[in-house]
Amino acid sequence: MRKIKCVLSYDGTNFSGYQIQPKKRTIQGELEKALYKIHKGRPIRVHASGRTDTGVHAQGQTIHFETDYQLSNYNWKKAMNTLLPDDIYIKDVIEAPDRFHSRYDVIEKEYHYYIWNTKETDVFKRNYAYLFPYPLDIKAMQEACRYFEGLHDFTTFSSAKATVRGSKNRNLYEVTCNKNGHEIEFIFRGSGFLYNMVRIIVGTLLDVGQGKLEPSAIQDLLESKDRRLVGETVPPQGLYLWQVKYEDKDSSE
Amino acid sequence: MRKIKCVLSYDGTNFSGYQIQPKKRTIQGELEKALYKIHKGRPIRVHASGRTDTGVHAQGQTIHFETDYQLSNYNWKKAMNTLLPDDIYIKDVIEAPDRFHSRYDVIEKEYHYYIWNTKETDVFKRNYAYLFPYPLDIKAMQEACRYFEGLHDFTTFSSAKATVRGSKNRNLYEVTCNKNGHEIEFIFRGSGFLYNMVRIIVGTLLDVGQGKLEPSAIQDLLESKDRRLVGETVPPQGLYLWQVKYEDKDSSE
Repeated sequence: MRKIKCVLSYDGTNFSGYQIQPKKRTIQGELEKALYKIHKGRPIRVHASGRTDTGVHAQGQTIHFETDYQLSNYNWKKAMNTLLPDDIYIKDVIEAPDRFHSRYDVIEKEYHYYIWNTKETDVFKRNYAYLFPYPLDIKAMQEACRYFEGLHDFTTFSSAKATVRGSKNRNLYEVTCNKNGHEIEFIFRGSGFLYNMVRIIVGTLLDVGQGKLEPSAIQDLLESKDRRLVGETVPPQGLYLWQVKYEDKDSSE
Repeated sequence: MRKIKCVLSYDGTNFSGYQIQPKKRTIQGELEKALYKIHKGRPIRVHASGRTDTGVHAQGQTIHFETDYQLSNYNWKKAMNTLLPDDIYIKDVIEAPDRFHSRYDVIEKEYHYYIWNTKETDVFKRNYAYLFPYPLDIKAMQEACRYFEGLHDFTTFSSAKATVRGSKNRNLYEVTCNKNGHEIEFIFRGSGFLYNMVRIIVGTLLDVGQGKLEPSAIQDLLESKDRRLVGETVPPQGLYLWQVKYEDKDSSE
């Protein structure tokens, strides 16, 4: 058996998220359907670095699967892209070492969140950014970003629905925010992320940007471990799984 | 009766073009549905500067309608945007003089066409540009653009299906082509355009860009008046109706 690792992008707009579900159009569902065809009717299970929700996009999701087929990396890429719908694209294929696992071996994930910040709606952005019409204080948000960096217990900033057992400690290596014209880009790099964590942090940063919250209040919020104290979860269409990094040099991008 | 002029944008992806048709989702259909609601069940006919095909976008389509309702420009805009779906957006509303007509009074139209020119597919561009993976000679295309500028009979570059009677002379004020990263932008400004004219011209420019045609051959093609001699009609999703200009200062943007 060979282990095939793929880096892929998808436009999440017309998917009910990553994870396979009966009667829903999902990214995993489409990937497994394509591999089923390649393997002439044999089901192939696909494993991802993690799920993404309905409407969330990916520039660099990573998956793997096992196969006894022998194709070159180039031919895997070509075969899969031929069979996949046009809102999923396999960017890169590599044969990974046997011990590689796309979920358990992650050492770093990067997410981006985009806000389109102007009073006038842009119909071409509606599925690809959060259209936010109110003025935002970028400097205050940038200052608040720094409080999220480092090792923290992120209980306050994870979904109440989250069922993760064990530690809610995560190490964020980078939390930044920049404005380019009407576009505000948030970048998050970290050891891992809790469910809805990026979208809850961005919601809180928007409260800071609107003057509802002082940047320095973030520290107390982290310590409170109380989800009810913080902002709205911002909508999914601004969120992109940007990149997943692995330790093993052989299997990294 | 008052004449209301609106400038609007739309994402053409999920529409069967501009013109109203039974059982199809069209831009005109959605506009008339919204106005029907505002007028409490009275049908209102909408007139546009021209139609756009399935998948074609608009940054600045112009329409008008007649009404006996008295609303401020701001309130027309607000009422219409509240009732319209999120892939149509009214950018600007102005009360126009009685003699104004969105179609007959056009003095200039501007179209843009976008090509995403790289071997790797970008899932986020697929509905908003033509993904063209082959190398293109931009300088040759720029040279070819100049042959289209000025007053010409554009029979060669109009759809064989076109049923326009009368002159096929059109005056193009600007035909340009520029590359920015992977994006190639074509700009067309002219007195008017025949059916499919922009998409056939871009198809021909791509032939030039691939070395299949010399830039200077454009002159002979224009003179031939033979549609069969020229390139493919490029797909609709790269095309944007960018702006419509009118003579009357009172009713222009």
